[in-house]
Amino acid sequence: MRRRRGIGSQSIVLSNPKKRNALSLAMLKSLQKDILHEAESQDLKVIVISAEGPVFSSGHDLKELTDEQGPDYHAEVFRTCSEVMMMIQNHPVPVIAMVNGLATAAGCQLVASCDIAVASDKSSFATPGVNIGLFCSTPGVALGRAVPRKVALEMLFTGEAMSAQEALLHGLLSRVVPEEQLEEETMRIARKVASLSRPVVSLGKAAFYRQLAQDLRTAYHLASQTMVDNLGLPDGQEGIKAFLQKRKPIWSHRVASSEDPGP
Amino acid sequence: MRRRRGIGSQSIVLSNPKKRNALSLAMLKSLQKDILHEAESQDLKVIVISAEGPVFSSGHDLKELTDEQGPDYHAEVFRTCSEVMMMIQNHPVPVIAMVNGLATAAGCQLVASCDIAVASDKSSFATPGVNIGLFCSTPGVALGRAVPRKVALEMLFTGEAMSAQEALLHGLLSRVVPEEQLEEETMRIARKVASLSRPVVSLGKAAFYRQLAQDLRTAYHLASQTMVDNLGLPDGQEGIKAFLQKRKPIWSHRVASSEDPGP
Amino acid sequence: MRRRRGIGSQSIVLSNPKKRNALSLAMLKSLQKDILHEAESQDLKVIVISAEGPVFSSGHDLKELTDEQGPDYHAEVFRTCSEVMMMIQNHPVPVIAMVNGLATAAGCQLVASCDIAVASDKSSFATPGVNIGLFCSTPGVALGRAVPRKVALEMLFTGEAMSAQEALLHGLLSRVVPEEQLEEETMRIARKVASLSRPVVSLGKAAFYRQLAQDLRTAYHLASQTMVDNLGLPDGQEGIKAFLQKRKPIWSHRVASSEDPGP
Repeated sequence: MRRRRGIGSQSIVLSNPKKRNALSLAMLKSLQKDILHEAESQDLKVIVISAEGPVFSSGHDLKELTDEQGPDYHAEVFRTCSEVMMMIQNHPVPVIAMVNGLATAAGCQLVASCDIAVASDKSSFATPGVNIGLFCSTPGVALGRAVPRKVALEMLFTGEAMSAQEALLHGLLSRVVPEEQLEEETMRIARKVASLSRPVVSLGKAAFYRQLAQDLRTAYHLASQTMVDNLGLPDGQEGIKAFLQKRKPIWSHRVASSEDPGP
Repeated sequence: MRRRRGIGSQSIVLSNPKKRNALSLAMLKSLQKDILHEAESQDLKVIVISAEGPVFSSGHDLKELTDEQGPDYHAEVFRTCSEVMMMIQNHPVPVIAMVNGLATAAGCQLVASCDIAVASDKSSFATPGVNIGLFCSTPGVALGRAVPRKVALEMLFTGEAMSAQEALLHGLLSRVVPEEQLEEETMRIARKVASLSRPVVSLGKAAFYRQLAQDLRTAYHLASQTMVDNLGLPDGQEGIKAFLQKRKPIWSHRVASSEDPGP
Repeated sequence: MRRRRGIGSQSIVLSNPKKRNALSLAMLKSLQKDILHEAESQDLKVIVISAEGPVFSSGHDLKELTDEQGPDYHAEVFRTCSEVMMMIQNHPVPVIAMVNGLATAAGCQLVASCDIAVASDKSSFATPGVNIGLFCSTPGVALGRAVPRKVALEMLFTGEAMSAQEALLHGLLSRVVPEEQLEEETMRIARKVASLSRPVVSLGKAAFYRQLAQDLRTAYHLASQTMVDNLGLPDGQEGIKAFLQKRKPIWSHRVASSEDPGP
């Protein structure tokens, strides 16, 4: 389910609370479609993923993982899920998770995969698959890149939940606030991101993830080129000019000097 | 020194407190033997490494690192030590360190190399080799993969000890408890791990470390295949069936459908 | 600007407070020269980088990044900056940042690039380039290797400042102290490092960064060889002998047995 907000923020809401927002194959495909829907629109500046009900998401729909479906179906489920997670990282705009409740297994993976994650202090996080004989190996990909490895391994081996405060401490969350401030704080960050130049943010996001996987010298080579490219963007020059002239920048959101500005 | 416990947990105790449980070549070879001893036994579900006396381990036996032994002997010491540390990570069951006291140099490396580490609040951790002219380079391999790099570098360059609380904060430990609860809390986690399906945990542990060293796409490819393989395990299907039928799973611990069950 | 201290510590002071210690190309080249100046001197044991005024450094000089200079000049700025940062990591002695105030953009990158960073509790850290249309992509190289990725991404996407306490918590800093203790605490650490054997510290520092970029097996192979090499250093043997003889070691700081000792 998706909604638009005036500020350039797209809101995607997991809205199957009766099934604890399980990431069934249908739900994953719908999520994929929603995430891609406006990716190329110059008006889109930020995506916020939230959920209805007390469970953010309980992960895969276990009814889809029984013997009856068989390994080919299982493979499609995990491939689609992995594609959704990578799509978040590869998306041109920042994706924020707004979590108010329990996020488990692939639900926890979804939080770990977002660029920014804000949670209410009553939220908690777990990878409990091991309890039902299905080790959270794909959630471990995102979790193991978000928190120290001993933190990830304890969650994976014991299935025990981590509080929002612990998740903040260990890097799984960006911010924890009381439940009544969750929407306000998340939208404050979303508005901030939406006030920035889209091509500048896109370029920076892509470069950040790309350089992080490289050795230091290659990373600096890539990032230095990104800085030069960024300065070549119309908004790169506008921002610096505005700063030196002590005025607010006016973003064109154009990706090249010769390009037709967005609507 | 090793002991068995009824629950499927193997207990390995460093038991040379007079020598501060120094990891002499003999001690390392004994540790290696103990760790391998029951690795292939289907009854083994978890290993707990602890120590007698106020020092968990002081690291290498410096008498073995003088000129007299020469570089070939030194190389054997470090090669054996590295093999022990990698063996812990490659072991089919989770390895838990239970620490009550000081862990320094290769002793700190041993804690960092375990999958889970529980410590009493009086424990402390240091890599003080630099004080005696022997930089803790091999401990730095495990430490640098467990904590943020500035934390590791300060420990390595100053040799100063880190408290259990700091170690917890920075990811070197999984849990810190008062001394009188150390055994209880460690065994609670060990019992939890021992109650799980051994082949499920083994598959998940191996996949976690393997994917962590890969780029995101390769990591998801490996982990997705692991999920499919996990669902193909008898205990993978049993767990899901039990969950859907709202009953406790009964693990067979078999690694393939056609395989003869363990004793 | 550089000063020498008696203890083997070189002090580099960013001393253009009127321009908020901006890292102009001239400043970067001067920093580069200062960092290299005594690199090969056996008397040099540690470098401390600090700054005059309330801003540690505000990052690049934006006047150098306008259209007028053009992409070749921009590229030179970022290449020089990257070289300075890598030079810190590749330097034979530890480099300590002593921060008392705001460190932003490339100024924050400089702190992240040092081996150890001590800051006063009034200090803060930000990568606000996105606000002026220039995403902090090169600072993100150092930041993304110092703190968890969600922490880095929130700083990069929102431009908001992180307090010294948060920076400590997330691994960007090694130590936070009240302002009036900043110099004392930093010099305590510097004196400690300066009391160690230079070739031992150099060997260890280089090996630490090298192994960290490798897979575990290669890392242990490299680090084990480093340990053997370390024991082959005159100070490696002196340290162990002194320890076994219960006396203080006397470092020769020589890099080979046959080598002429330093002055």
